[in-house]
Amino acid sequence: MNLLRGKSAASYVNTGHWSTRAIAEAKRYCKVSIAASSEDAKFSYAPKQEQWKIDREAAYVHYTSNETIGGVEFHWIPKTGGVPLVADASSHILSRPLDVSRFGLIYAGAQKNIGPAGLALVIVRDDLIGQAAPGTPAIFDYKVQAEADSMHNTPPSYAIYLAGLVFQWLKKLGGLEKMEEINIAKAKLLYDYLDQTEFYRSPVAKEDRSRMNVPFTLRSDKLDEEFLKLSKAQGLSELKGHRAVGGMRASIYNAMPIEGVNALVDFMREFERSHG
Amino acid sequence: MNLLRGKSAASYVNTGHWSTRAIAEAKRYCKVSIAASSEDAKFSYAPKQEQWKIDREAAYVHYTSNETIGGVEFHWIPKTGGVPLVADASSHILSRPLDVSRFGLIYAGAQKNIGPAGLALVIVRDDLIGQAAPGTPAIFDYKVQAEADSMHNTPPSYAIYLAGLVFQWLKKLGGLEKMEEINIAKAKLLYDYLDQTEFYRSPVAKEDRSRMNVPFTLRSDKLDEEFLKLSKAQGLSELKGHRAVGGMRASIYNAMPIEGVNALVDFMREFERSHG
Repeated sequence: MNLLRGKSAASYVNTGHWSTRAIAEAKRYCKVSIAASSEDAKFSYAPKQEQWKIDREAAYVHYTSNETIGGVEFHWIPKTGGVPLVADASSHILSRPLDVSRFGLIYAGAQKNIGPAGLALVIVRDDLIGQAAPGTPAIFDYKVQAEADSMHNTPPSYAIYLAGLVFQWLKKLGGLEKMEEINIAKAKLLYDYLDQTEFYRSPVAKEDRSRMNVPFTLRSDKLDEEFLKLSKAQGLSELKGHRAVGGMRASIYNAMPIEGVNALVDFMREFERSHG
Repeated sequence: MNLLRGKSAASYVNTGHWSTRAIAEAKRYCKVSIAASSEDAKFSYAPKQEQWKIDREAAYVHYTSNETIGGVEFHWIPKTGGVPLVADASSHILSRPLDVSRFGLIYAGAQKNIGPAGLALVIVRDDLIGQAAPGTPAIFDYKVQAEADSMHNTPPSYAIYLAGLVFQWLKKLGGLEKMEEINIAKAKLLYDYLDQTEFYRSPVAKEDRSRMNVPFTLRSDKLDEEFLKLSKAQGLSELKGHRAVGGMRASIYNAMPIEGVNALVDFMREFERSHG
């Protein structure tokens, strides 16, 4: 509604659940061309730069820089040859430094690394706002919101306050550089363990594995229920994979300390020993 | 976007700031006719039923059942001759029992009597949904939200949790009947005091005075600053009237106990004695 700027097409990269949702919504407003897709391999990888075919007439190129459910993360920022790049960065924003100057627009729901659900962050290039389509609700018009300091309507003030506390915590910790180090260490711990056993399996291509969301399967899905029951008893919760993909998923967002990942790996090792 | 249902006009009652905002937004989508207005007297009253002229072709009639800034409250539910009635009840919902069956749609921001800002309540008649205009964002389409149990997108879960605590508190208190009794007592205390002095003045017609928002002026606006300074020192905060109307405004929502209103009246009496 904001970014078409009179154009009639947009380009999307399809890497799974959230890309698919974004594409469905975009199709209600414009022609959508698929610049790249990993559907051929059950959304288990991030299509490489050379695979991207961007429609030169596209108003923008949209991708989901971390697929929460599939656990696929882009560890590089795509080049788009001048077409504005739009990212849904909901599930890995603030997990690592990010060169925002490379983007036309970044949006992110707060509920992973920013603060409570009900708040969304938008970072948009000045030259891309001010051409919202007729019929765009005022509160969705980035120009209106920018001119009102994001307070055209009453903002979710308590959620913003909590997000402020999170930002202070991140700064005190040493900023996003430090946060990234911690996240790399957490992810390495879990993936290293997954890679040295045949009892568990990560479905995602090694170079595209998410540092935030780690889906994995057990040797037999008949063990899933037992795994969930016993892990929960150990205080390891929310490990059930999304119904769209099954299996398990460990979400190790910024708020999860390395001790939590350690506890998970210890449990997985013990479970393998007793059920392997 | 949801309620026009193929029609091209809607009818609005203009009673002040929030009505005016609603009308401006509606004009972007349809022809707006003004069913009634109190602009002739600086929005100081609620137009009586017999003054309402509802366009029979209107898809709905919209009014602001409590004007937060002007302090005008409808203490009766308008009759619309079959045209669906829509209310912005943001600033007095849950302050009194409400016969929702009389409405086509009621909407209310949470931030007055429900919970934290960032959550909105919508109560809509089943037969009015399912005809959203093309181009309506899916999250604004009431049919989509109804079918998804209001969770088409990630809901503001913490705000909903806090609202649940408020609902429990209201039930324990004795429900909305009891809440109304308390609110009547609070408002009477303040208005009775305003009416027996000439030092202060309520600008609103007696029968339309809000139980939630009580604007008042001092004999001279030269005293405003001193009033605000001294009241703040007594722990009485947020008394400054909205910049659109000036003067003072006491917001005595559900969360304000009668002791708070007592303290305000005591302070006002003392201020009158020392500055009158």
